Amino acid sequence: MALDTSNLVELTMAICDIESVSGNESALADEVEKLLSQSKHLSVVRDGNAVVASTNLGLGSRVVIAGHIDTVPIANNLPTQLHHFEREQVIVGRGTVDMKAGVAVMLKLAVELVHPNVDITWVFYDNEEVASDLNGLGRLVRNRPDLIQGDFAVLCEPTGSIVEGGCNGTLRAELVFSGKKAHSARSWMGENAIHKLGSALEFLSNYEPQEVEVDGLVYKESLSAVLVNGGIATNVIPDLATLTLNYRFAPSKSEQAAAEYVKSLFEECEISIVDSAPGARPGLQSPEAKAFVAAVGTSVNPKYGWTDVARFSELGIPAVNYGPGDPNKAHADDESLPASQIYACESGLRNFLTSNL
Amino acid sequence: MALDTSNLVELTMAICDIESVSGNESALADEVEKLLSQSKHLSVVRDGNAVVASTNLGLGSRVVIAGHIDTVPIANNLPTQLHHFEREQVIVGRGTVDMKAGVAVMLKLAVELVHPNVDITWVFYDNEEVASDLNGLGRLVRNRPDLIQGDFAVLCEPTGSIVEGGCNGTLRAELVFSGKKAHSARSWMGENAIHKLGSALEFLSNYEPQEVEVDGLVYKESLSAVLVNGGIATNVIPDLATLTLNYRFAPSKSEQAAAEYVKSLFEECEISIVDSAPGARPGLQSPEAKAFVAAVGTSVNPKYGWTDVARFSELGIPAVNYGPGDPNKAHADDESLPASQIYACESGLRNFLTSNL
Repeated sequence: MALDTSNLVELTMAICDIESVSGNESALADEVEKLLSQSKHLSVVRDGNAVVASTNLGLGSRVVIAGHIDTVPIANNLPTQLHHFEREQVIVGRGTVDMKAGVAVMLKLAVELVHPNVDITWVFYDNEEVASDLNGLGRLVRNRPDLIQGDFAVLCEPTGSIVEGGCNGTLRAELVFSGKKAHSARSWMGENAIHKLGSALEFLSNYEPQEVEVDGLVYKESLSAVLVNGGIATNVIPDLATLTLNYRFAPSKSEQAAAEYVKSLFEECEISIVDSAPGARPGLQSPEAKAFVAAVGTSVNPKYGWTDVARFSELGIPAVNYGPGDPNKAHADDESLPASQIYACESGLRNFLTSNL
Repeated sequence: MALDTSNLVELTMAICDIESVSGNESALADEVEKLLSQSKHLSVVRDGNAVVASTNLGLGSRVVIAGHIDTVPIANNLPTQLHHFEREQVIVGRGTVDMKAGVAVMLKLAVELVHPNVDITWVFYDNEEVASDLNGLGRLVRNRPDLIQGDFAVLCEPTGSIVEGGCNGTLRAELVFSGKKAHSARSWMGENAIHKLGSALEFLSNYEPQEVEVDGLVYKESLSAVLVNGGIATNVIPDLATLTLNYRFAPSKSEQAAAEYVKSLFEECEISIVDSAPGARPGLQSPEAKAFVAAVGTSVNPKYGWTDVARFSELGIPAVNYGPGDPNKAHADDESLPASQIYACESGLRNFLTSNL
């Protein structure tokens, strides 16, 4: 059954019901490609399970609007269900928030906006919910850098249909504490590596995260233990304990500065940086960004989670997050979305793309 | 090849070379049974892979002398090797210390002491190195309580051929710290269970173990973290962290008192006692124990590790550890034993069993 863009709620449900857990996006990518190929004003390129559709109207500026079509694994929450309340409809199911309602808005506008006021590159991509090296947007940037160009980008990740600018960077560090093995009946012959975690954890427990203002938005950082592991057997003094930290740092800091900061905080352990990704400044100073904020008419907040806006940021393209859905419901077993959020996002984006910049 | 008791070094090596990792003791038990059955002064009983040989001379008192015939898994350290140094021979290999040299001494004396000054029950048992409910001595106590009776017991576990009295009790406790899950980009929405470990570990790190005098020997306690585990994924604030402690407590304390003590030390967590075993008082006040110490002519130290003397203690039989080998070499990949220790132990035990009590 081909996708029908006339009703956004039905379109969202239809897209959710085509299961597309990361790595399994081909059925949905086929439908997206088929739909967009019917529009004469779009030039469509397929790369793996990513689909890029562009207008080429020779307008003065170009906006990239992007969204991923994969989801995290389903949790007995498909097919979607539509619940009716007195003043609202709610769609319940995997992908409604992260981020198939956003994809539905993109598809509807891609098909309907034959004469936008800016040239538009619509990017539908795969493998966002898995390891960074599989990310479909990253692959497009490598394979077809000519396609991912523009003066401004909008990523339709869930923001509750308000504008969220930039994102914090993220870094994982592994702290390894060493000791000396001994039989636990003679603990004084050894050196307990687990006990050495104590001061690091006490420090984290009392840590006050910094709040950093970047381009007028206040980014709240965080530094958290996320994994801990140590010990050999219940009668052995452990000689090794490992603590993994996640540091979310303001977009004004480089990855290197973030790594040096974490390394400066802890003693008595070996610290290695497992991976990191830079943040993205909100980029709200560009004329396109100012026009976007004015057109969608919502408040502007910092984004805390890392999103692919950082990839646009690396390409020098100012980018914001703007999409339907409460980000706290993303990945939840009870993932669900009020229909009004979809219409709000559609209206904001349509206004931006058809108003005079 | 039948076991030959004429040379203790060769006998030790022969016993070690019959591999008998816990659960696989039947070949060695067969040889032990065969050897002892040839001695007319012994009455021999087999129970599973345990062998009990008793004299029944109608003497005024009875001594139980016990040793286990199983070992921990081999680590490329069999067959045994004999190294010659200027003043010493050293046997290298699995089981030399824990505790086949002790078993060799027991076998030689069992065969040779046709007219001891006390009746003797020689106990060779299986499955000491594994879970307590498999322990062959425990099984004998259940199956044949008539066999495990006496006025005094010697366990030939490695002590460096000095007398070690009693043993500490041991208790394992699991501390569960709970929090609230959240995305690590918004750590303030959650409650980090790993961070809560901090104060408990700081406490353990600064903990000063008690030293407790029992029947004239000073037992040093210890309280150690042995396992730690927590965390779900590197982008999730963990809602659960588990810390396992091992408390080695003086034999003057009951298991219940030990459990209450551990529970009194920690807050902000659920504490459950996973298992525990009581200690054993040194029992050096009995006439047999005093005679033993006098006969073997060595110093007397407290035993820190938990051993099966606690089983004798529960039966009301005063018991000591006395056997060849450095306990710190037990279970080591380079397990090894100076031959002089075997002769020292043989001489001490022979003196005790043939002197006038």
